[in-house]
Amino acid sequence: MGRPPLPLLSPDRITSAAMDLVNSTGGFSVPQLARALKVRPSSLYNHVAGREQIVELLRERAMSEVTLPADDPARPWTEVVADIMRSYRQSYARYPRLIPLLTAHAVNSEHALTMYNTLAVTFSRAGFDPADTLRAITLIDSFVLGSALDVAAPDEPWSTGAEVGPELTAALTTGSAKPARADDAFEFGIAVLLHGLAAVIPGAERN
Amino acid sequence: MGRPPLPLLSPDRITSAAMDLVNSTGGFSVPQLARALKVRPSSLYNHVAGREQIVELLRERAMSEVTLPADDPARPWTEVVADIMRSYRQSYARYPRLIPLLTAHAVNSEHALTMYNTLAVTFSRAGFDPADTLRAITLIDSFVLGSALDVAAPDEPWSTGAEVGPELTAALTTGSAKPARADDAFEFGIAVLLHGLAAVIPGAERN
Repeated sequence: MGRPPLPLLSPDRITSAAMDLVNSTGGFSVPQLARALKVRPSSLYNHVAGREQIVELLRERAMSEVTLPADDPARPWTEVVADIMRSYRQSYARYPRLIPLLTAHAVNSEHALTMYNTLAVTFSRAGFDPADTLRAITLIDSFVLGSALDVAAPDEPWSTGAEVGPELTAALTTGSAKPARADDAFEFGIAVLLHGLAAVIPGAERN
Repeated sequence: MGRPPLPLLSPDRITSAAMDLVNSTGGFSVPQLARALKVRPSSLYNHVAGREQIVELLRERAMSEVTLPADDPARPWTEVVADIMRSYRQSYARYPRLIPLLTAHAVNSEHALTMYNTLAVTFSRAGFDPADTLRAITLIDSFVLGSALDVAAPDEPWSTGAEVGPELTAALTTGSAKPARADDAFEFGIAVLLHGLAAVIPGAERN
């Protein structure tokens, strides 16, 4: 009697197992992954080139729900950028513990590149010079990834008994339950960022 | 011949071992921590109440280099908030993999509370109502933590061979080496956020 057959190994199955490890422990190693899949590490290398490629497969999955708006040069740049921010955050909020792993690795995923290219084209059309385009993309990345982490924050941000002053108490009292509170703060952040970009970029079209 | 004596267990030593685990693997469990310290899990509970308390000790350490400006109601709120953002990012940039662990847990650390109280007082004095104060604090948190992750990003954000369009290529060419590139983008982000806040908050003093 042989062992029951295991599902065939594939890049997709390897990615799912790596994602499970990241979600539960915060990271993955190739030996851990092999153990989780009940194969030898060498078997994994028949399907993926190594850890770096698995990280890129995880990035593709994190980005899988990012939808980019149709290319329309007549549309206000602020609307295009806001749409991308919303979709980008929504997609990454599913995998908060993956975020520091992805930001620590150079990007080599087609989906991610398409998004960054779209942002660069949009800022360039809006009159941003190349240096400000790079700064604006970095700002959006930082804000969106931080906001994706906020989606996973607890409903009660403070432990009871914490010494919260009157101003902070008043602020916290206004907050609705999650996820509405995170969504509200994110939309506020989008408005602040877009107004701020229009204010600090000399050539940016105001629209 | 007995075993060589181990250093005495203490909350500080437990925190250091947990931080090492988070830095190398992305997370920690109490059994892993006990193995790393060569003690039984039950011994840990003589020094810390449990995993939650260890997370708060890690937060205290992540926040240990946050310095708050002296309380001066006459100083422009934009300067106070910018100082806090710089110090907060600098302190967290040392431990990027810790960030999703901290954002997933309710805050119960005195140092963190003092910072949030200071932000609430500052926004309140600047004319923000309580709801906008909560939104502004959330925005700052998201932007700063995302920017702390950017500090740990690779010097070359793209793998060679990636299909980068002309606008993105032009933008990337302007970037200096890290950490100057991350610092430059962060200062740009601070300026955008402060201009944006002044623009969207009806009662905010412009200064």
